[in-house]
Amino acid sequence: MKVIDISWPISPEMTAYKDKKIVTFKATKTFEKDGARETIVTIGSHTGTHVDAPSHFLKDGKTIDQILLEKIVGDCSLLDLSDVPEKITAEHLSMYDIAPDEIILLKTMNSDYQPNDPFLQNFVYLDASAAQYLADCGVRAVGIDYLGIERNQEAHDTHMLLLQEDIPIIEGLRLAQAQEAYYSFICLPLALQGLDAAPARAILIFDEDEE
Amino acid sequence: MKVIDISWPISPEMTAYKDKKIVTFKATKTFEKDGARETIVTIGSHTGTHVDAPSHFLKDGKTIDQILLEKIVGDCSLLDLSDVPEKITAEHLSMYDIAPDEIILLKTMNSDYQPNDPFLQNFVYLDASAAQYLADCGVRAVGIDYLGIERNQEAHDTHMLLLQEDIPIIEGLRLAQAQEAYYSFICLPLALQGLDAAPARAILIFDEDEE
Repeated sequence: MKVIDISWPISPEMTAYKDKKIVTFKATKTFEKDGARETIVTIGSHTGTHVDAPSHFLKDGKTIDQILLEKIVGDCSLLDLSDVPEKITAEHLSMYDIAPDEIILLKTMNSDYQPNDPFLQNFVYLDASAAQYLADCGVRAVGIDYLGIERNQEAHDTHMLLLQEDIPIIEGLRLAQAQEAYYSFICLPLALQGLDAAPARAILIFDEDEE
Repeated sequence: MKVIDISWPISPEMTAYKDKKIVTFKATKTFEKDGARETIVTIGSHTGTHVDAPSHFLKDGKTIDQILLEKIVGDCSLLDLSDVPEKITAEHLSMYDIAPDEIILLKTMNSDYQPNDPFLQNFVYLDASAAQYLADCGVRAVGIDYLGIERNQEAHDTHMLLLQEDIPIIEGLRLAQAQEAYYSFICLPLALQGLDAAPARAILIFDEDEE
């Protein structure tokens, strides 16, 4: 069994959405004074690798603690769309055989950027046609390798089309180390009660024999 | 495949170590003003379900982002020690067949308490003899169902004996729903760079056929 960590490293220096830095680490115990270390962490619900719950955009939508973990733990297909500029459309996805109930991870050229780089205004995103396509396929969850899954859509179509179907969105994956393949995907967001989203750690697991 | 969530629900009201409340949720976007919700979360590195890295107590110890995830993802034995009062000793553990490289989870009467109850001063803990026993067995990681794994040990023997051997400690598990058995254990702490510990989500996985 091999584990690939596909999580965004979390620190005060990390890339922040639209460069609005949120993360702070404050030492509350130190070796010098206390013989041990402890820290208080401030973090956004949408910092780094995180899962958007329906209640991010839908008033009566499920909150992050209400999402069935089976939706974000299971078989996944990682699609390598690194040569797609600007946005992923339904046409790009139609090249693939997408099974219902699969978790779909989208690797794009966003993965070329480093975890502490300035925010990338023109990140590759999933457009509304592609979100509709994935919803129609009946996928379980959708993940992408940037801090947002859409931009420049006033009505937030991409989020809406997925979240209305109770399809969780995983943003902020780091996929540079992962090749197009099938994996077991495990994404575990913090159990934040009643919130719109939560930071998560995400991994891919595969048998080394299959490599 | 069945998933049992064994994570402590995180909220401002949750039980805090020695009742020192840390968690706050602050809404930074609301439906009323922004048409979407976002939240800033303040949390301790040792809040709820969390993993202690060696650097919690050891100056040159590994930090939480340096822990191999393979240490806290894999086969585990859940030992039901619910009838043990006060503390778990080597003698209690010697009744079990503990294999090297296993992750050991300790279910105690601590699991009877609710997630928002006042802090339990007399929680059942793992004493130094038991920590030494588990280190000698060569276990991969040790988890327990309270916010600490030891109390009343001035030199923090239990932590030291495990962390010196690079055995991560998972504290704050919720094991009321889990019976003594073998499981796949997955614990994913946030990738907090350079810190002493991190909040985590933890699950058990088993085949329903085996139930």
